[in-house]
Amino acid sequence: MNVVVLDLEGVLVPEIWIAFAEAAGIPELRRTTRDEPDYDKLMKYRLKILSDRGVKLADIQSVVSKMKPLDGAREFYSRLKSKTRVVILSDTFEEFAHPLMAQLDYPTIFCHNLIVSDSGEITGYKLRLSDQKRVTVETLKKLNFKVIASGDSYNDLSMLRAADKAVLFRPSEKFARENSDLPAAYEYTELALQLEIYMKE
Amino acid sequence: MNVVVLDLEGVLVPEIWIAFAEAAGIPELRRTTRDEPDYDKLMKYRLKILSDRGVKLADIQSVVSKMKPLDGAREFYSRLKSKTRVVILSDTFEEFAHPLMAQLDYPTIFCHNLIVSDSGEITGYKLRLSDQKRVTVETLKKLNFKVIASGDSYNDLSMLRAADKAVLFRPSEKFARENSDLPAAYEYTELALQLEIYMKE
Repeated sequence: MNVVVLDLEGVLVPEIWIAFAEAAGIPELRRTTRDEPDYDKLMKYRLKILSDRGVKLADIQSVVSKMKPLDGAREFYSRLKSKTRVVILSDTFEEFAHPLMAQLDYPTIFCHNLIVSDSGEITGYKLRLSDQKRVTVETLKKLNFKVIASGDSYNDLSMLRAADKAVLFRPSEKFARENSDLPAAYEYTELALQLEIYMKE
Repeated sequence: MNVVVLDLEGVLVPEIWIAFAEAAGIPELRRTTRDEPDYDKLMKYRLKILSDRGVKLADIQSVVSKMKPLDGAREFYSRLKSKTRVVILSDTFEEFAHPLMAQLDYPTIFCHNLIVSDSGEITGYKLRLSDQKRVTVETLKKLNFKVIASGDSYNDLSMLRAADKAVLFRPSEKFARENSDLPAAYEYTELALQLEIYMKE
């Protein structure tokens, strides 16, 4: 029995921090794990900026609720879940993702939580599980699933490598070159086709 | 972070074997784990009847595709998944359940597979994992989820007991009495309310 695990940002929806940085006019928030590989440092940097500017969770949610899944993502996901079970493995926060999840009709998503004060300030974050993408894939394999993964970037690598089969989706040229043993898809039709080939193997 | 795990038959949809027994006029197929607690014996008995009568997978799927989820199940499930992640844990077979899953807009379901010959006869079955309901709950707890379970009967007991919180749904009087430390719900509104109380705890 197959399970397909998908990264969220870059695969089904745009990068949430970057979209917020643009909408709110705070270019410092465009910093990502590519610029600062230490995730805890990056998050503390982001939360300090939000705090300095008095940005509350509701402000970010308001921006996210105006975001849309990537063109074609809804149809891709909807078709995929009719063929197998799909779990989204994301390092985003439930509180950010929720408005976008609504637009995908609430997929099963495994992610993390923010710590929010009574007055709505984001005071911290709580990783549900460290390296959860890899650990979840390994766990699903122990539950006797064949795990097929798709992701776009470095934070997906351990998940892609732990899976039985993996497809890169819209990787950077560098990421594709470094993982040239894995097929890469650039359109949802290609991705769906490759996943279905693996599902039937 | 919460995850709600739900039994399928009796909680969201009718008992598939019983519905098929009635539709096909084969009362012997009404036998359940209550009559034959040895699941492998029960399945071999069922498969022999199907074989003797020349019933193919397509015949059963045709009946299942005319079945409906229980009254109110669709709305209950749809509302629940907007509030948390939901995984269906069922000992049914993917090949049977698929037409009913379509009517629930394809929830994430962990179940088992049938072995089907090229000509469509059901020649056997393959449990994906033995005691999967309990094992899956224990696994989700290790992934740092708070697991809230609901089921209606004896084959749910290990899952209900392994979960952090559990609610019986439409249990028999005997099952409710034997598990009187667990709350029992008889309507979806009650079940939703109890699950939401546990989600917020």
